[in-house]
Amino acid sequence: MDFNDVSFGLADKADLAPLSGREVLERLIAGDLPAPPICETMNFMLTSVSGGEARFEGIPEFRHYNPLGTVHGGWAGAILDSALGCAVHTTLAPGEGYTTVEFKVNIVRPILETSGRLVCDGRVVHRGRRIATSEATLKDGEGRLLAHGTETCMIFSAPGQSSA
Amino acid sequence: MDFNDVSFGLADKADLAPLSGREVLERLIAGDLPAPPICETMNFMLTSVSGGEARFEGIPEFRHYNPLGTVHGGWAGAILDSALGCAVHTTLAPGEGYTTVEFKVNIVRPILETSGRLVCDGRVVHRGRRIATSEATLKDGEGRLLAHGTETCMIFSAPGQSSA
Amino acid sequence: MDFNDVSFGLADKADLAPLSGREVLERLIAGDLPAPPICETMNFMLTSVSGGEARFEGIPEFRHYNPLGTVHGGWAGAILDSALGCAVHTTLAPGEGYTTVEFKVNIVRPILETSGRLVCDGRVVHRGRRIATSEATLKDGEGRLLAHGTETCMIFSAPGQSSA
Amino acid sequence: MDFNDVSFGLADKADLAPLSGREVLERLIAGDLPAPPICETMNFMLTSVSGGEARFEGIPEFRHYNPLGTVHGGWAGAILDSALGCAVHTTLAPGEGYTTVEFKVNIVRPILETSGRLVCDGRVVHRGRRIATSEATLKDGEGRLLAHGTETCMIFSAPGQSSA
Repeated sequence: MDFNDVSFGLADKADLAPLSGREVLERLIAGDLPAPPICETMNFMLTSVSGGEARFEGIPEFRHYNPLGTVHGGWAGAILDSALGCAVHTTLAPGEGYTTVEFKVNIVRPILETSGRLVCDGRVVHRGRRIATSEATLKDGEGRLLAHGTETCMIFSAPGQSSA
Repeated sequence: MDFNDVSFGLADKADLAPLSGREVLERLIAGDLPAPPICETMNFMLTSVSGGEARFEGIPEFRHYNPLGTVHGGWAGAILDSALGCAVHTTLAPGEGYTTVEFKVNIVRPILETSGRLVCDGRVVHRGRRIATSEATLKDGEGRLLAHGTETCMIFSAPGQSSA
Repeated sequence: MDFNDVSFGLADKADLAPLSGREVLERLIAGDLPAPPICETMNFMLTSVSGGEARFEGIPEFRHYNPLGTVHGGWAGAILDSALGCAVHTTLAPGEGYTTVEFKVNIVRPILETSGRLVCDGRVVHRGRRIATSEATLKDGEGRLLAHGTETCMIFSAPGQSSA
Repeated sequence: MDFNDVSFGLADKADLAPLSGREVLERLIAGDLPAPPICETMNFMLTSVSGGEARFEGIPEFRHYNPLGTVHGGWAGAILDSALGCAVHTTLAPGEGYTTVEFKVNIVRPILETSGRLVCDGRVVHRGRRIATSEATLKDGEGRLLAHGTETCMIFSAPGQSSA
């Protein structure tokens, strides 16, 4: 990924407090907030959001390989979890927080370092008051499905991180 | 993790062909085979195997953080998927291969860079001729459960990687 | 459900052998094959299929209640599993069989005996040579989502039932 | 199942209010509360509980068959969901309620009407303040594993049923 202009780190929580979830993510895309460290480690980044949707793009590399000679399932899990969680994140009002309760991933084709730039689209399926669910796909540049998943998130009022 | 004596890379498939799955993993632990690249990226490693079981240990770091200020769910997913898959890997005869079909992860407590050295134990639940399932837990040094998961793998005769 | 013209039972496997999966399901809808016994027990039935898609409709009743005073999650699981599996079934060539490996269900709103006639739409997400995945939604007459799920099936050449 | 002495129906919520979850389930086993209607429809019943554990026993019948000539996956899903949910139910204090958020089921061997009396054991894996997770197995009389699953439940303070 072209991370030339990106700084990695964590935003100040006080800066985020007055913002909606979607506003936070839009500022992150614009580079007004630092990109989270996992993006550098996994070589993916958030590239667009709308109400209830989030897209990540990423390029898996040799450093993500498992002993079987393919990209580790955890890489697919990580980019899917990112899109699944951020899709829910776009629905949060200022002062609301969320945490991932569970996610499930199906890997349907092997992923290689030659797979190129992959696109991961997440979408909210259900937004309740306390529980939200989402689904996501991971596709290559030719639109072939490589993996897909679903996620359950818990919504809470206080913006801090919370134990489930 | 103390990776001082570890070289990262991929073993030659011809070297692996005559070995059982458990023998492959035992040689990997002994350092006779290179550790897969994902281990360096995620800072975890395989530390023990037996028939139907595999243990990984890992230390999550700031480079694995999500924008919420905790370790990304993908890190938990990756170490669980490793233990879940390697537990199945220990059951393979020479010439058998496997691929991960799906896995599900529950994250039950937040994981932080201060969580320390974590232990992830995978165990085969069912080993059929073509399908195997496994379960795993991720705990901290005080034995508190942080995450858990289950996985479905497909077994096939040829040792090569295969599209599901 | 209006089961007045429906006979319940199992078709003769010899009659099914020359048919594609979609042909089997179309004959089942037309009443040329007996409806499976579960349909009477759960009060749902297959109402339409196309390539990669299957729709069930059903009306949950008091006999499906759990001790909490709502329709048991198993009813939602059963109708979703039906739509998820039959969506895959529509893709089978003559001589191919399938079995459900796993399914996951999210229940997002309570289901009651007053919920009325519900519609469950299943759709294939991936059809590989040996593994297929599908997704399904369960909605009420006003289009509100009540539950959704995903499934993994294994495809095999012989038409008989097979242990995974 | 021998349901000779069992009456099916729903308990009065006012009678349940002062009881812990475990007390409710113990009275249900003792026959002091009516068995839920789903038990008659699916031919299974709760047979024992302890802190964090619940056992169901059931006998699948021809009326639970799918068109493939085996017991429908929804039957396995229903008995697993029962054991998974009741395991969490045993942990509730008076005034607490719960609802099933999601469950995942793996079916590892075909289930037939000749499979006999099956035992389904559920166990709490994590009990948080708002989220609990559980796991369960379904075995035949010879101890062979037929299916297994995991579940996520949401805990809430008010005893009434609640939309997620």
